[in-house]
Amino acid sequence: MTKIKLPPKLPFKKVGIAGLGLIGGSLAKAFIPFGGLELFVFDHDPQTQTAARRVRRFAAVTGDLETFLNWPLDLVYLCLPVRRNLEMVELIGNRQASYPVTDCGSTKAPITRAATQAGLIFCGGHPISGREVSGYQHASIDLIPGSLFILTPPEKASPEILALAEKLRSLHELLGCRVKIMTPENHDRLYGLVSHLPYLIAVSLAGTILKKGGEETLPWVGTGFRDSTRLSASSPSKWAEITLENATNLVENIDALREILTELRQILTEHDERKLLDMLQPIAAFRQKL
Amino acid sequence: MTKIKLPPKLPFKKVGIAGLGLIGGSLAKAFIPFGGLELFVFDHDPQTQTAARRVRRFAAVTGDLETFLNWPLDLVYLCLPVRRNLEMVELIGNRQASYPVTDCGSTKAPITRAATQAGLIFCGGHPISGREVSGYQHASIDLIPGSLFILTPPEKASPEILALAEKLRSLHELLGCRVKIMTPENHDRLYGLVSHLPYLIAVSLAGTILKKGGEETLPWVGTGFRDSTRLSASSPSKWAEITLENATNLVENIDALREILTELRQILTEHDERKLLDMLQPIAAFRQKL
Repeated sequence: MTKIKLPPKLPFKKVGIAGLGLIGGSLAKAFIPFGGLELFVFDHDPQTQTAARRVRRFAAVTGDLETFLNWPLDLVYLCLPVRRNLEMVELIGNRQASYPVTDCGSTKAPITRAATQAGLIFCGGHPISGREVSGYQHASIDLIPGSLFILTPPEKASPEILALAEKLRSLHELLGCRVKIMTPENHDRLYGLVSHLPYLIAVSLAGTILKKGGEETLPWVGTGFRDSTRLSASSPSKWAEITLENATNLVENIDALREILTELRQILTEHDERKLLDMLQPIAAFRQKL
Repeated sequence: MTKIKLPPKLPFKKVGIAGLGLIGGSLAKAFIPFGGLELFVFDHDPQTQTAARRVRRFAAVTGDLETFLNWPLDLVYLCLPVRRNLEMVELIGNRQASYPVTDCGSTKAPITRAATQAGLIFCGGHPISGREVSGYQHASIDLIPGSLFILTPPEKASPEILALAEKLRSLHELLGCRVKIMTPENHDRLYGLVSHLPYLIAVSLAGTILKKGGEETLPWVGTGFRDSTRLSASSPSKWAEITLENATNLVENIDALREILTELRQILTEHDERKLLDMLQPIAAFRQKL
């Protein structure tokens, strides 16, 4: 278990978490050892509610959205699928709730625009920690501590939003995360490249193998196939929402990758070893830096 | 350490291994516990020779090819890079050496054609175990035992070659490998799909991220990027030889993957969630079967 030094003063006392999936559940579990922090959790799934009640360390557990939204919270984390998070932003805006709001979704520009429009005090976030499984049963106290946590206040943020970002930074640093701040648009460009594109490529690769080789290829594969297609096993519904929300960046990235593939195809057709090595070497050197 | 039951009768006594890289070195180390099997090893690198001599369990170690080829061997493993293996086949053919020959290269059709032409008793092989590192210093007694080992006698094999394939099967089963037999052409089609294509795609993905994001993206990446680009860090010279030898299959595979990418791009442009899910779901189900 990660040892957490208790802070002299927590930036929030009553924290609400909507959605106890892999990320929301892991966040809730990571907050449990924080003395003085009360956790109010919502999940629509009865089994998850039962599992959360069994923990006996949450101040309250509910499957009723009205109940959740009426609690006297200091902060709300939206940890539902990205499109449900957008609906929550609207709901909270309509109630003119006084608490600040953050989220853990994989795209940041659309929800930040929606929150601004709804008049919320909102600063989005994104823990860089994921697995190809989902749900509370896979949530773990170890998933988020130690990871990178991006915070995305909008470029022209109000003083309240900047104050919220600073409080979130303290809270996440207490969780053991490295916190980085960037604009929602820069986040979506960057993660469109280093996270959403790898998902689509893993899908394209696994899809090609399925189409050309079928299921009978599976007994023959090695670790190369295993690693390079791992992401394609992740939840299609979760990824459909993410990739559609970040479609503009992704179309650009697909085009850039297709150019490289076309070049590779040309080199292989011409059997040009010198050109092939000139292409492979800087890429290997780049990846080896990781 | 893998526990190996000593066989009543080893199919070979004096085994030569040319090339003590990751695969040849791991094979040599895995054979060490076999009582009654004498290992004769060749590597051109003086440091590797010194390291191999230090083991004190090899019958002989040399950096001189003539010496190696003149030893009274029962079997020779070619574990050099694929193009050097081809040169060795020609050398052994020119000497009209009496011993049967196998190899551990990642492509099988070109070397089988060359060996047939050179008049060798040859049955190619390919252990499905690899890492993104190379060289004797990374070779390990654990790498090959337990893995799949493909053997590729040609479709119209002579009785001598079929007998060699059966002896190699026994020997590799004694190593703890699952042995499968297929034609060299089927091997190159299958591994062009599940191994060589993943390498080229990992390269294309890492190349896109390098081109569009540069090195400053590296501190921000998560496990998705790490896994899906791992193969691109492997030895460019090794992979250039493999992909050029299997270029015909790879060009076909690239074309199939480009079709899927084009479809994905179209779906993202049209924001067609139903079509996207219809595409993602069977691929996720396929990959989850692994």
